[in-house]
Amino acid sequence: MASSLLSRQVAVSLQHNLRLSVPRYRCVSKAATKSSVEFEYDGPLMKTTVPGPRSKDLMKQLGEIQEAGAVNFFCNYEESRGNYLVDVDGNRMLDVYTQISSIPIGYSHPALIKVMQNPDNLSAFVNRPALGILPPENFPEKLLETLLSVAPKGLRKVQTMACGSCSNENAYKTVFIWYRNKERGDIKPTKEEIETCMVNQAPGCPDYSILSFMGGFHGRTLGCLATTHSKVVHKLDVPSFDWPIAPFPRLRYPLEEFVRENAQEEARCLEEVEDLIVKYRKKGKTVAGIVIEPIQSEGGDNHASDDFFRKLREIARKHGCAFHVDEVQTGCGGTGKFWAHDHWGLEDPADIVSFSKKMLTGGYYYKEEMTPDMPYRIFNTWMGDPSKNLLLSAVLNVIKAERLLQEVARSGKALLDGLYDLQARYPHILSAARGRGTFCAIDVRDEDLRNSLIIKARNKGVVLGGCGERSIRFRPALVFKEYHAHLFLNIFGDILAEYK
Amino acid sequence: MASSLLSRQVAVSLQHNLRLSVPRYRCVSKAATKSSVEFEYDGPLMKTTVPGPRSKDLMKQLGEIQEAGAVNFFCNYEESRGNYLVDVDGNRMLDVYTQISSIPIGYSHPALIKVMQNPDNLSAFVNRPALGILPPENFPEKLLETLLSVAPKGLRKVQTMACGSCSNENAYKTVFIWYRNKERGDIKPTKEEIETCMVNQAPGCPDYSILSFMGGFHGRTLGCLATTHSKVVHKLDVPSFDWPIAPFPRLRYPLEEFVRENAQEEARCLEEVEDLIVKYRKKGKTVAGIVIEPIQSEGGDNHASDDFFRKLREIARKHGCAFHVDEVQTGCGGTGKFWAHDHWGLEDPADIVSFSKKMLTGGYYYKEEMTPDMPYRIFNTWMGDPSKNLLLSAVLNVIKAERLLQEVARSGKALLDGLYDLQARYPHILSAARGRGTFCAIDVRDEDLRNSLIIKARNKGVVLGGCGERSIRFRPALVFKEYHAHLFLNIFGDILAEYK
Repeated sequence: MASSLLSRQVAVSLQHNLRLSVPRYRCVSKAATKSSVEFEYDGPLMKTTVPGPRSKDLMKQLGEIQEAGAVNFFCNYEESRGNYLVDVDGNRMLDVYTQISSIPIGYSHPALIKVMQNPDNLSAFVNRPALGILPPENFPEKLLETLLSVAPKGLRKVQTMACGSCSNENAYKTVFIWYRNKERGDIKPTKEEIETCMVNQAPGCPDYSILSFMGGFHGRTLGCLATTHSKVVHKLDVPSFDWPIAPFPRLRYPLEEFVRENAQEEARCLEEVEDLIVKYRKKGKTVAGIVIEPIQSEGGDNHASDDFFRKLREIARKHGCAFHVDEVQTGCGGTGKFWAHDHWGLEDPADIVSFSKKMLTGGYYYKEEMTPDMPYRIFNTWMGDPSKNLLLSAVLNVIKAERLLQEVARSGKALLDGLYDLQARYPHILSAARGRGTFCAIDVRDEDLRNSLIIKARNKGVVLGGCGERSIRFRPALVFKEYHAHLFLNIFGDILAEYK
Repeated sequence: MASSLLSRQVAVSLQHNLRLSVPRYRCVSKAATKSSVEFEYDGPLMKTTVPGPRSKDLMKQLGEIQEAGAVNFFCNYEESRGNYLVDVDGNRMLDVYTQISSIPIGYSHPALIKVMQNPDNLSAFVNRPALGILPPENFPEKLLETLLSVAPKGLRKVQTMACGSCSNENAYKTVFIWYRNKERGDIKPTKEEIETCMVNQAPGCPDYSILSFMGGFHGRTLGCLATTHSKVVHKLDVPSFDWPIAPFPRLRYPLEEFVRENAQEEARCLEEVEDLIVKYRKKGKTVAGIVIEPIQSEGGDNHASDDFFRKLREIARKHGCAFHVDEVQTGCGGTGKFWAHDHWGLEDPADIVSFSKKMLTGGYYYKEEMTPDMPYRIFNTWMGDPSKNLLLSAVLNVIKAERLLQEVARSGKALLDGLYDLQARYPHILSAARGRGTFCAIDVRDEDLRNSLIIKARNKGVVLGGCGERSIRFRPALVFKEYHAHLFLNIFGDILAEYK
């Protein structure tokens, strides 16, 4: 490891920072000074099937320590660069899944390494504060420079959290508190509320609900999980809340070819949303908020029209429910706009927008009126991690400097066009190619074939992910270029040729 | 900032690592090569009242961005060292609260800075993996070297998570899954279970419960919050589960003086636990697990005897419930043993032990039989953060090399003896001094006086925390020595003298 590419590069760069004349490794100094693309490898390189022998050995070791059955293979992150993930057996793969969509600008990006090399930043990594009570001096400045510089339209407040689940859990709590205070008006909490809340009973713990959608995924902690309805493995055996679940439109793709029938399906779902709000209010389980993903990801990359979301936002407003857009997976540029819901052109902004993954820190934006009425209502020890804000700052600079959203639009078009072409050539295998930016997916005939295609692609040097029952989802980093799309399409085309 | 102590120190140390003959700052090289104690300041130094003008200015700025009413003051972490927290107005305070008990070996510890300086470690900071599917090569080795090297007796499996709440949420899910499989035996989940779980209904989402204790704190996400019963501000307006809540013994201190009456109180609580298990089973809300803190922290530093916990463990076993010890705040040495529940001398180990805070990573240990039966049942994108494991490795080395548990026992005794002395001198103000190691607390006459003492102490250069209704809790780092205890006691004694 001591001689890994990354540590060589860092050592050299440290020397450079200290302005000392020490010979530089040519291959590395080049990498460190050029753009992320030139910095990376020129293609996949496979040495074994995956997982290879070293991975298998480590899987066994990890299996002694924890349930490790989901491990695909072990990685050599030191040698991974840009769009290429290198495993412990020396296999180098084009990564079109990027750690479940959580690597924003590729592996070992020079801009991120620079953050680590700056001695001014070290304190944030070794002195993790309790942000809610003792924030570091640069915390407001860093929030302005990072999260607030890309805040969704109409939202100027932001709360950081450690991960996606905590972001949604606390967003839901923010919604409940806001809703209850709205009902309460100027009246203070009653003695009964104060006493009953301590023992989990109404009225102190009101029987409010969050309306979610079938196929949605919002995390796996108990509050989030009550709004998650994507796979049995997420849900089975865990107690839950009786909260309303609306159907998410099941549309035909490509959307522009099935406008009329899709609009009917969407109208049906919206009607059901309104019915559920009324029904659950009658049941005494008032809907305080509606949560939705711009594209249902884990549930199978299910899209809906911009019009559907605009109408849903109107329904939320009409019934006084908060409108919470969960951008944990869709946020940070993958759809070609920074936030996927930027595509909708909402007149009245969302009330809450949650994020995590590629944003490196969890958290949520919220409207002024959603601000908790008292300190310590939304609180925990860490409330995020300022070291992640430093890395995010570098990520946002790279996105801007390298115009990565435009690149995503371009490479996304190449990818989707290629998928259309493949599904035309293999209609017995592929269908429903769909996507926005590089946030694309395609359906495979059945689950077994989908899984087998993912494994075959991996052995040819491409890391893909599945979602829903039989979809493949594409989640490359924002540094995925047109030629990476073509590279993938060529490899995938070769695999499909076996099924001619 | 560029000239902060930390960055000077790092720059120098980097030069040293690169073996270059550059002049070294004397004051810094000394600091970087000696032990953490010599490295720190020699006492508090106050320049303004706290919060000072710069903090107030920043509080206003942060208040525009988020609800920031809980902020005490803003910190200059770069200048903070060892037991001393420096604020943005140049005030240097002895920190006996350490970011709500989450700083293990003091600020800017040289061993942690060394982790950051090692180029081999950088990849872990810039390439955060989806640990559940694509762990780094050194992950099993690091788990063995860190978490498993200090595993509680009888537990050999560990799952990392991002924070304390996620740790407890996933521990509860582990308990529910284990319990359901135990009930199921060899029979597979039924079609009805599979269908109903997707819509939050029984039998797929069974009506199981976790038994918790009045005054307990286990986090604030919705599952955790259903077991938290410490303060109204945590609970009000958030929907919850009807889960059983047992009384936690209200003991008289010092424990050794009130053995007989305390034993009666504990017997009453244990009886109530058994009654609740029976009652909730009858109600169809089977108790799958019992969760408890070794010392109720947030709820007011409430202790119980080792015998109480041993008997509680027996009750859990007798009724087939999992026994989950929440060591998020008590773990990592503060009580003088690595885990607070090491004091109990359990014959049958706990089934689950959760941790976070000073451990730097969240997670939980679990018994072999609690291992989930399938991959992806306990899962999320990050499942922890390997960069935190690297820092933890350094922390554990320091604890061992500097025999910090023995130091904690020593400084804890000095602290508690001092508190006994103060309460003898000010019986109209102080009572119920109690503690294990440095994990100490004392009660103040009323809430207002408690809060006022904390503020006065801060202005004299000591950071303290409150807990419960009218307690002060002491949560120094593990590098808090006897003379720090005396320093605190002198300052606190001076403040109390005003109340003579």
